[in-house]
Amino acid sequence: MNQPTQLVNVTGLAQALEAFATERDWAQFHSPKNLVMALTGEVGELNELFQWLTEHQSKELVDDPKAKGRVAEELADVLFYLVRTASVMGIDLNEAAVDKLALNEEKYPAEKARGSNKKYSEI
Amino acid sequence: MNQPTQLVNVTGLAQALEAFATERDWAQFHSPKNLVMALTGEVGELNELFQWLTEHQSKELVDDPKAKGRVAEELADVLFYLVRTASVMGIDLNEAAVDKLALNEEKYPAEKARGSNKKYSEI
Amino acid sequence: MNQPTQLVNVTGLAQALEAFATERDWAQFHSPKNLVMALTGEVGELNELFQWLTEHQSKELVDDPKAKGRVAEELADVLFYLVRTASVMGIDLNEAAVDKLALNEEKYPAEKARGSNKKYSEI
Amino acid sequence: MNQPTQLVNVTGLAQALEAFATERDWAQFHSPKNLVMALTGEVGELNELFQWLTEHQSKELVDDPKAKGRVAEELADVLFYLVRTASVMGIDLNEAAVDKLALNEEKYPAEKARGSNKKYSEI
Repeated sequence: MNQPTQLVNVTGLAQALEAFATERDWAQFHSPKNLVMALTGEVGELNELFQWLTEHQSKELVDDPKAKGRVAEELADVLFYLVRTASVMGIDLNEAAVDKLALNEEKYPAEKARGSNKKYSEI
Repeated sequence: MNQPTQLVNVTGLAQALEAFATERDWAQFHSPKNLVMALTGEVGELNELFQWLTEHQSKELVDDPKAKGRVAEELADVLFYLVRTASVMGIDLNEAAVDKLALNEEKYPAEKARGSNKKYSEI
Repeated sequence: MNQPTQLVNVTGLAQALEAFATERDWAQFHSPKNLVMALTGEVGELNELFQWLTEHQSKELVDDPKAKGRVAEELADVLFYLVRTASVMGIDLNEAAVDKLALNEEKYPAEKARGSNKKYSEI
Repeated sequence: MNQPTQLVNVTGLAQALEAFATERDWAQFHSPKNLVMALTGEVGELNELFQWLTEHQSKELVDDPKAKGRVAEELADVLFYLVRTASVMGIDLNEAAVDKLALNEEKYPAEKARGSNKKYSEI
């Protein structure tokens, strides 16, 4: 019998965010629609960290502990709203990831997609 | 001795995405800057699923398996680029989440933030 | 002979932004890719102003001069990067708007689209 | 007496979009909150056109009429939702642009900002 694949486990975070919202009586604001907007706001902040950098500079950012820390903070914020959205909608993120990865394997066969940055519909 | 807190574990997915990119010779495109743009594209698609819905409708979306599946797919896509960005930058997402959650506890004390949707700087 | 349709005129702003960038030696940063990321950052800030509001509250925001002013400021920022992107790419925004509006008229025939929030592919 | 500065004129488009929405009975969906999400969706699509390009490639995109046309289309979509948001909120985009440009002149004095990609708070 196969073990179910485990790509991610976000249970601890989902519970922590649930508690965080409950303690502040914030669940009332956490509709999927609102959470998606909040996620978008954080992604905007992430963009601001990279917008004027060359690709090369974006790769070297990790050598600057302060800049790396800022990115880590924004990635965490995005993760929070992502996990919270899945959580309030009863979506299992691991299952979603397993399914989507399988779909991507089909959409982008390694042989055809190699070295190409084209969208699957254009391969 | 304290155990380190475990909020998320994304190791399996990070490895799967690394393999996926390597098999397709896509690592060359995966600069942090590019990955943040790709993340943004997926977040845009997520917004499209909710843009004309009322908050109430966004909550009821989970009762429609097809619509829920579409959201799950977009959340997975966002998760992929999020984990991949962290991965190429050598950022530990669990550590980032632990640190940011602690910071949020400070920024939004439960007593002061209760029931308010104001930003921390306005509390 | 038909007059060309005039939907928007952004010439004054395009010139002002060009001068602004030149005076600061910023043209070097204004690749289309970078400008799109900067645009995204501003759209993120716009989302932050609306994320926890109900639709009703978002409509009433105009009655609060301070809040309305904040939105106006973010809309201006989005407009700046939009016009600047078009400008560095030699895209005529009025022409683009005329063409796209005509396309939308075709995609969403008034009779079929009336009162529906479905995407054109689902009508 | 000074003439008011004219940076942009979007009156024609605002009227066309108003008519477009009215003919389809879509005004009911056009709350500022919803329009901001729709704007975000279009910005996501714009990101998708640039995500895997180098900055250099993003500059050369204008030499490919088909690619340039796609960008023009997405820029038009962003413009539509931007103008429509301003319109339903009674925000004068020209006035907003004039005010914000003046503010930016203050925030980024040419002498100090020259050749720097730092945020104003870091200059």
